Amino acid sequence: MTAQTPHRPSKGERTRARILDSAAELFSRSGFAAVSLRDIAAHAELTHAGVLHHFPGKESLLIEVLGRRDRIDAKLLFGTNADAPPEELLEALIGIVARNMGTPGLVALYVKISGEATAPDHPAHAYFVDRYRVLRERLAEIVSALSAQADPPLDHDPVAVAQQLLALMDGLQTQWLLEPDAVDMRASVVTFLRQLGLHVDTPQAPDPRGTA
Amino acid sequence: MTAQTPHRPSKGERTRARILDSAAELFSRSGFAAVSLRDIAAHAELTHAGVLHHFPGKESLLIEVLGRRDRIDAKLLFGTNADAPPEELLEALIGIVARNMGTPGLVALYVKISGEATAPDHPAHAYFVDRYRVLRERLAEIVSALSAQADPPLDHDPVAVAQQLLALMDGLQTQWLLEPDAVDMRASVVTFLRQLGLHVDTPQAPDPRGTA
Repeated sequence: MTAQTPHRPSKGERTRARILDSAAELFSRSGFAAVSLRDIAAHAELTHAGVLHHFPGKESLLIEVLGRRDRIDAKLLFGTNADAPPEELLEALIGIVARNMGTPGLVALYVKISGEATAPDHPAHAYFVDRYRVLRERLAEIVSALSAQADPPLDHDPVAVAQQLLALMDGLQTQWLLEPDAVDMRASVVTFLRQLGLHVDTPQAPDPRGTA
Repeated sequence: MTAQTPHRPSKGERTRARILDSAAELFSRSGFAAVSLRDIAAHAELTHAGVLHHFPGKESLLIEVLGRRDRIDAKLLFGTNADAPPEELLEALIGIVARNMGTPGLVALYVKISGEATAPDHPAHAYFVDRYRVLRERLAEIVSALSAQADPPLDHDPVAVAQQLLALMDGLQTQWLLEPDAVDMRASVVTFLRQLGLHVDTPQAPDPRGTA
């Protein structure tokens, strides 16, 4: 049997990943402002200088932590799958919502940091402005394609629907974090899409909140 | 001519209001964790002891700042108007969204603190859990009444719609704060309600974002 040899991470890559995991955990617990680079170093069992060897500062760590999940999502929605039929992309989006229900810590980090980052002087402000602009644009393309292929075609404003869909997904996260048993984020998004007449052909997934 | 003499606030009431204004401004700018009671005292031009005379601590100030706006909204939606026709209550809700577009600082405070408060050990956690529970319940009653009086009656799940509506309103705030020109919160909420088949009889209000 031949198998591709898996990439074995170098010591440097493992250290980098450990720093990012520590940063994600501490930012998630206390927010960006209340965590110092020294806290992150201590949590990762490194010296301050050891962290600085891999990342120039706290801001770059934050952007890297946020970017790590966004890059995974972007690949699902827009990357190699970009030519997939729009209904598959919509299913990928719903899959992301379901996956988030298994990672409350990371969801809490996004909710907290996106709240902080609405302030124009926050280090992640530009990142979030750009993130929403790109997401609105790409989701509008998916909605537009789905509306056109519906029979009869739907006359939604795709940009408006994309904005609503993103807002719904964000707002559900706050309610879900506050009271997990009262909110099924995935079911709510599916219901929203079906109310719009958009075809969502997806089975009810098992609720992964048991891990929360 | 007789007119009711307006209540003239006492010196204590004026000081209390000044402390609350300072707290709202500083929390709104920097988040709850990064602001000290001494910062608030300095901003209100009082001593630390002067602030403590009116409020036992920073937590009570936060709850009071949040509660001030929520009490105004609750009165509009559920207070003396509670017996009003449901379409009037829906209009009151849309009016609140429109009003929020004129108070970006207070909206930013809510977005930031609700994000922080998803953490179970945050001093406003219980406040927000309760806030969403009550809002979901009361909005579900309005949606239920509106669905029943539609012709033909709509068969929405009122609790699910209430949850979506709150999530939409919250999520729009984040996008609006990040890029005000790209998001009309009021129009988006009206569109959402109309997509559900709910009757919204409200003129397009002038966009108050000029004051932002």
